[in-house]
Amino acid sequence: MTVQLVGAGPGEADLLTVRAARAIAAAEVVVFDRLVDRSVLELISPLADRYDVGKTPGQSSSQESTNELLIELGRSGRRVVRLKGGDPFVFGRGGEEALALTSAGVAFEIIPGLSSSLSGPLAAGIPVTHRGISRGVTIVTGHLIDGECNSFVHLANPELTLVVLMGVAHRAEIARQLILGGLTPDTPVAVIERAYTSSQRTVRTSLQRLGVTEIANPAIIVIGAVAAMSLNDITTELATAAW
Amino acid sequence: MTVQLVGAGPGEADLLTVRAARAIAAAEVVVFDRLVDRSVLELISPLADRYDVGKTPGQSSSQESTNELLIELGRSGRRVVRLKGGDPFVFGRGGEEALALTSAGVAFEIIPGLSSSLSGPLAAGIPVTHRGISRGVTIVTGHLIDGECNSFVHLANPELTLVVLMGVAHRAEIARQLILGGLTPDTPVAVIERAYTSSQRTVRTSLQRLGVTEIANPAIIVIGAVAAMSLNDITTELATAAW
Repeated sequence: MTVQLVGAGPGEADLLTVRAARAIAAAEVVVFDRLVDRSVLELISPLADRYDVGKTPGQSSSQESTNELLIELGRSGRRVVRLKGGDPFVFGRGGEEALALTSAGVAFEIIPGLSSSLSGPLAAGIPVTHRGISRGVTIVTGHLIDGECNSFVHLANPELTLVVLMGVAHRAEIARQLILGGLTPDTPVAVIERAYTSSQRTVRTSLQRLGVTEIANPAIIVIGAVAAMSLNDITTELATAAW
Repeated sequence: MTVQLVGAGPGEADLLTVRAARAIAAAEVVVFDRLVDRSVLELISPLADRYDVGKTPGQSSSQESTNELLIELGRSGRRVVRLKGGDPFVFGRGGEEALALTSAGVAFEIIPGLSSSLSGPLAAGIPVTHRGISRGVTIVTGHLIDGECNSFVHLANPELTLVVLMGVAHRAEIARQLILGGLTPDTPVAVIERAYTSSQRTVRTSLQRLGVTEIANPAIIVIGAVAAMSLNDITTELATAAW
């Protein structure tokens, strides 16, 4: 009677942790959502039951029904894996599911995963911290805009990198508030679309141009001096040059 | 002629990514430092050459010699893995090594790892974000104190979780500045010592008592409302209760 809350990482299956890959392969039931990559789902046993509880953006009302499903499955005595894109405890609402399971007396275990908030910038060759350039990193979602009016004003800190998940829709307002908070309009911005997929694309822009820059979801927005860096795997370039 | 900069994750070898575990096993030369767990080092082939470039706290002068070593090894044509605790691009100085390799024309690849800044809190049952409690997370090191005098004053944000790595030595001053910046003295604090080892220990305290709380290095300091949460794997408790 155990539910494992498993971080599915940023995409490709070999970016799962070894522990997560083993848990998925051994699961008798897998509950997954929209953010989990197809290559990860291919690790699931053909004998396992699958539940797709994918939420489309803007729809979040089904968290309660997901909690109920996990409790019911957990009580069935089978090995249940709840797969969550990225890491369960970083904007994954894993805390809510863990609380629901605790209240219901269902045993659980949490297996961490790579959060796209850190691995996404890395995929574009951007170190979120770098000596002399960035002394730390703040990670938030664009949903902050829906709450307090000037929440991004207080996040303007030229010493830190700012990573914004799910920020495409509100990017103009985010930029406006950060400039109001003291960041210079020419602060570098990098937008990583579809990190760790074959269609990954990085768009480089600046804070003042962010609002008019074309971006497709899902995307990670990196704001700060490191966003101008591009320490890409030069292996790829050399491999291409050889053809 | 390729150097792989590989994130070794927070500790136990099964918390490596699958990609990282494969790279380590296939390496002909491995360069590693102090923060890499013994279980990870056990994956290295007995035929591989090993270089321990471990830095003790406070000694950082050898980064240049590590860069030189990586360039030299990269030019040897062998498969070189540079293992770094956590993630190479999160306080890992991986960016500096990548820059050095780029300048020298040595091809490289970067493989992400779990950063202890996020997986450490998870190990203690703490979600760094949680609906209604924390809307984001800031990650910094205690070394900020060595620079600008009041750098932590500006990090006081009751809506965000603050994770401080390498902050044990300066914890009293960090707490003082955060209270000066507006956090309440009773803000919950959790300190996770030796996360993901058999001697892991979590100390719960408050901002005003942080300076007088006994903590042993290495430790991760989590500051904010989520630090009072303890969504631990109840599997462990049930297993213990069964004896």
